[in-house]
Amino acid sequence: MSTAGKISAILNPGRMLADGIPYPDYAAALEMLDADGDWFDFWMGVSRRYEELGIGAREAGNDVSAGEWLWHAALSAHYAQFMWFHDPERREAGQHAKVALYRDAAPFMAPAAERLDLPFEDTAIPAYLRRPDVDGPVPCVVLIGGLESTKEESYLFEAMCLRRGMATLAFDGPGQGEMFFTRKLGPGFEKVTSTVVDHLENTASIDAGRIGVLGRSLGAYYSVLSASCDPRLRACVAWGACFDLSDLDTMPPHTRDGFIYVTGIEDRDEATAHLHASIDLADVIDGLRCPTYVVHGYHDRIFTMPEVELLRERVINAPIEIDVEMDGDHCCHNMGPIVRPRMADWMAQRLAEVPAR
Amino acid sequence: MSTAGKISAILNPGRMLADGIPYPDYAAALEMLDADGDWFDFWMGVSRRYEELGIGAREAGNDVSAGEWLWHAALSAHYAQFMWFHDPERREAGQHAKVALYRDAAPFMAPAAERLDLPFEDTAIPAYLRRPDVDGPVPCVVLIGGLESTKEESYLFEAMCLRRGMATLAFDGPGQGEMFFTRKLGPGFEKVTSTVVDHLENTASIDAGRIGVLGRSLGAYYSVLSASCDPRLRACVAWGACFDLSDLDTMPPHTRDGFIYVTGIEDRDEATAHLHASIDLADVIDGLRCPTYVVHGYHDRIFTMPEVELLRERVINAPIEIDVEMDGDHCCHNMGPIVRPRMADWMAQRLAEVPAR
Repeated sequence: MSTAGKISAILNPGRMLADGIPYPDYAAALEMLDADGDWFDFWMGVSRRYEELGIGAREAGNDVSAGEWLWHAALSAHYAQFMWFHDPERREAGQHAKVALYRDAAPFMAPAAERLDLPFEDTAIPAYLRRPDVDGPVPCVVLIGGLESTKEESYLFEAMCLRRGMATLAFDGPGQGEMFFTRKLGPGFEKVTSTVVDHLENTASIDAGRIGVLGRSLGAYYSVLSASCDPRLRACVAWGACFDLSDLDTMPPHTRDGFIYVTGIEDRDEATAHLHASIDLADVIDGLRCPTYVVHGYHDRIFTMPEVELLRERVINAPIEIDVEMDGDHCCHNMGPIVRPRMADWMAQRLAEVPAR
Repeated sequence: MSTAGKISAILNPGRMLADGIPYPDYAAALEMLDADGDWFDFWMGVSRRYEELGIGAREAGNDVSAGEWLWHAALSAHYAQFMWFHDPERREAGQHAKVALYRDAAPFMAPAAERLDLPFEDTAIPAYLRRPDVDGPVPCVVLIGGLESTKEESYLFEAMCLRRGMATLAFDGPGQGEMFFTRKLGPGFEKVTSTVVDHLENTASIDAGRIGVLGRSLGAYYSVLSASCDPRLRACVAWGACFDLSDLDTMPPHTRDGFIYVTGIEDRDEATAHLHASIDLADVIDGLRCPTYVVHGYHDRIFTMPEVELLRERVINAPIEIDVEMDGDHCCHNMGPIVRPRMADWMAQRLAEVPAR
């Protein structure tokens, strides 16, 4: 398959547009693919155009536009490289551009995103904390990305949480975004989440008794894992169902390649064994005690319905609600305007219900 | 041409999506058209689905979702009927649904939209006022729709103004939205705008010395007209260039039909003469004294480049900036993420610069 054909096959416009890619850019990208253009170069060009607009706005004192255009620049760079596992050099170039652009945008966001680098073993967890502009300690949702979605991709979902009175903390864990360069995918993601919760417990503006966790795609696995291991997480949303990697062999090839890539292990058999050993809730799921909400698309081709059934059967110590959307695709990205606010509402309600300590 | 073909030809996805139609709904509408479905029925169905979600959210106390889903319901009803000039009965049904749904959404918006019915002669001007949640009197932008865009369509643009510290007042004037039922298009639109300004002058939370006006498409004409006639308007944005209706004969047929429709005059020749007499800046343009900004797409097929040149030549008493976007379509809807924030920035800067009285 040509690169263009391969890219067309893996595009999820529902996801891209719900995450904030403007329709005109997406439409131009499709035209570009039809004309055999280069996906990576195209989006990096879009990114540079927004970067120039953002820099101009910053210089003119137009802070709101500076924040939004620099964020558009970051998101364009993100989608330049999101599935670029076959070309690590460009993937890394796109990652670095995205990270730098989002960092530039962060102080101009409303509310501003506070950059954090939380010490973890011999490295650091890169994160952004945003807090709604209201008085008093507020609940907080910890947001976890997936195989190639990162902390820079949740800006619009953060806005949904912020409008509902919740702070957000989005971070990259092992194998994700910035942290990929110091830690590959492996067991122990829950320790990273707990380090993030440690920080929130020591942040006066956050109500440490009302911290929830929400993860998307592979992040849904990390979310349930983290909530199973850390009782300070009082509510858990799995945006997609992933109990283990039973689906690995039947996943679309580019997704499988992505999983191999983020292990950092060259030998495919070895990487595959490592993945199966790293991603499995069986040993921890009995620890899950907090209210848990699973949103899953029936037509998901990455994580399939048996993963939903595993969660349904194996979650025995926590109240669990499972929404299987019969028209939904992966993470119900084709139903974003319905499922995204619903998850934010669910989280806001569960965190509001936690009894005061 | 079939209805489906006719509709495809008049669609402007850049506009629909920048105004807030979610991509999945737009994509489903295209599929529906391919299958010879009914545009109006499809969107009214989408509207009802969001209405149900909104009502459910309201009952569950999820106010943010209630506001957004009811707004989605209103916007879906808007696009069900937006160009439905050939079928007045359904057009009116869609209008009424949109109006009612937006009215339901208004109190749940953040910030809330205050419904106003401002007395005007023997009728009333329907309007919504939204105010950013900051202390002290704030500047305000008066927003004017066009041939078939109405006060309910500016929600996302309002958000851009609100984030920049400006209140917004969006209203329907003669021939537009709700007011179509009591006043058809005709001369004297400026009196309606001035009635709106009268109200803002008597609103303590608004800084009456910092009121601007911004109109879109045909509303760009109303905007310049109003600013030319009312010196209390201190800055003016023409989102599209319209000096007069020289373009009427060369407009796309459905647009021409729309112009005839909103006059309420059955005889086409009579309606056409009425339109030319009603829409012409020649006699008032010398009154324009405030900073004025024109954004125009070079490829606009409704209002063409000579309209830009008329503004360039005839605006002699006001500082005028003209942005012609060489890649832009009607109102540069295909460049929404660039031109929309730019207009909001321009307005915020001009209103900030007005000397204190």
